[in-house]
Amino acid sequence: MTRLPDPTEPSSSGPRARGRGRRPIEEVRGDVLDATGRIVLGEGIAGLTFEKVARAAAVSKTTLYKLWPSPNALALDAYFHAVADTLAFETTDDVRRDLLAQLHNFAAVMRTPGGRALLELIGAAQTDPDLAVAYRTRYSAGRRALACERLTLAQEQGQIRGDVDVRVLVDQLWGAVYHRLLVPDEPVTDEFIEALVANLFTGVTPDGR
Amino acid sequence: MTRLPDPTEPSSSGPRARGRGRRPIEEVRGDVLDATGRIVLGEGIAGLTFEKVARAAAVSKTTLYKLWPSPNALALDAYFHAVADTLAFETTDDVRRDLLAQLHNFAAVMRTPGGRALLELIGAAQTDPDLAVAYRTRYSAGRRALACERLTLAQEQGQIRGDVDVRVLVDQLWGAVYHRLLVPDEPVTDEFIEALVANLFTGVTPDGR
Repeated sequence: MTRLPDPTEPSSSGPRARGRGRRPIEEVRGDVLDATGRIVLGEGIAGLTFEKVARAAAVSKTTLYKLWPSPNALALDAYFHAVADTLAFETTDDVRRDLLAQLHNFAAVMRTPGGRALLELIGAAQTDPDLAVAYRTRYSAGRRALACERLTLAQEQGQIRGDVDVRVLVDQLWGAVYHRLLVPDEPVTDEFIEALVANLFTGVTPDGR
Repeated sequence: MTRLPDPTEPSSSGPRARGRGRRPIEEVRGDVLDATGRIVLGEGIAGLTFEKVARAAAVSKTTLYKLWPSPNALALDAYFHAVADTLAFETTDDVRRDLLAQLHNFAAVMRTPGGRALLELIGAAQTDPDLAVAYRTRYSAGRRALACERLTLAQEQGQIRGDVDVRVLVDQLWGAVYHRLLVPDEPVTDEFIEALVANLFTGVTPDGR
């Protein structure tokens, strides 16, 4: 998890000390994302309102309305921001090792209230086209791009064949985990994560052994 | 798609001709599943009520309440029943071919109103524990078992290694498709389906070529 400021310290003390309304907009945006990220990771997204965020980040609701079209849009930006470090890819010369480490971290994040909230947003997006667009543009497309970047590096290093469409691997690794989370017929275990990577890198046929 | 009775023919004429209330319960159940399957595949699940089904299948609402706890539960049973033939697995000696054929059929079914409805039920199940249980017990667990059965046969035929956990392959094939449907950053194309199978059977490393 990203290192976050001590949540017991009133979050208004820092930003507010520098004078209300004086912060540059990018600083305000960062403060809001930090404050919202703490709420989302700790409590999930249900019940997140601009009012709650305004109090936590010491900004006006007007400012929030200027920067985000809805509390869900803000929650998605904040979640992306909050998990960025935890879900960052290592880039050693062993892509299998790096993918396994990242996938284990990913599974752990998905067990938090924030991860649970993400599944609920995917669920709600099935009947809410605006939320579906927000989910993709503010969260999933960005995560997908980062995964493709790491997999493309592995292709350049000769660890994955050049003719493999790495976008498909995203669905066979992270997508497979989402599938078990969204339709939990089977649990997401460490063995599952390891099998996901092994199946793709070793192949499942006898001659692939 | 399963061969279904002509939808232009009033569905009450057949069953009712044999006398109201006289049909054995298994026959009633079958008639209700047929009638509901037609509705679900053609129109989806939104707006499906016991009243609508009662009219279409010429049964009383009381009978429906006896046989199913909710319209969603009935819809899931009916969908399972309606797609059973389309999603049946071939069992030639070429598992790759059989999987590809089934996955192409699966992708086609998911483009129907019934398939779309299935995604909405997965969505709603994220915040509705009863629906989540109904989804798993009445639909996904059964489909998963059928896929595992076909994959286990391939293991017995020596086409998939015995140490592979076939349950994981279900998530890396059908689960990957569900992922693209639920979070449509990328489309479900024929090439995607083919890559899913190729990646697992050939492996993605240079030596696996």
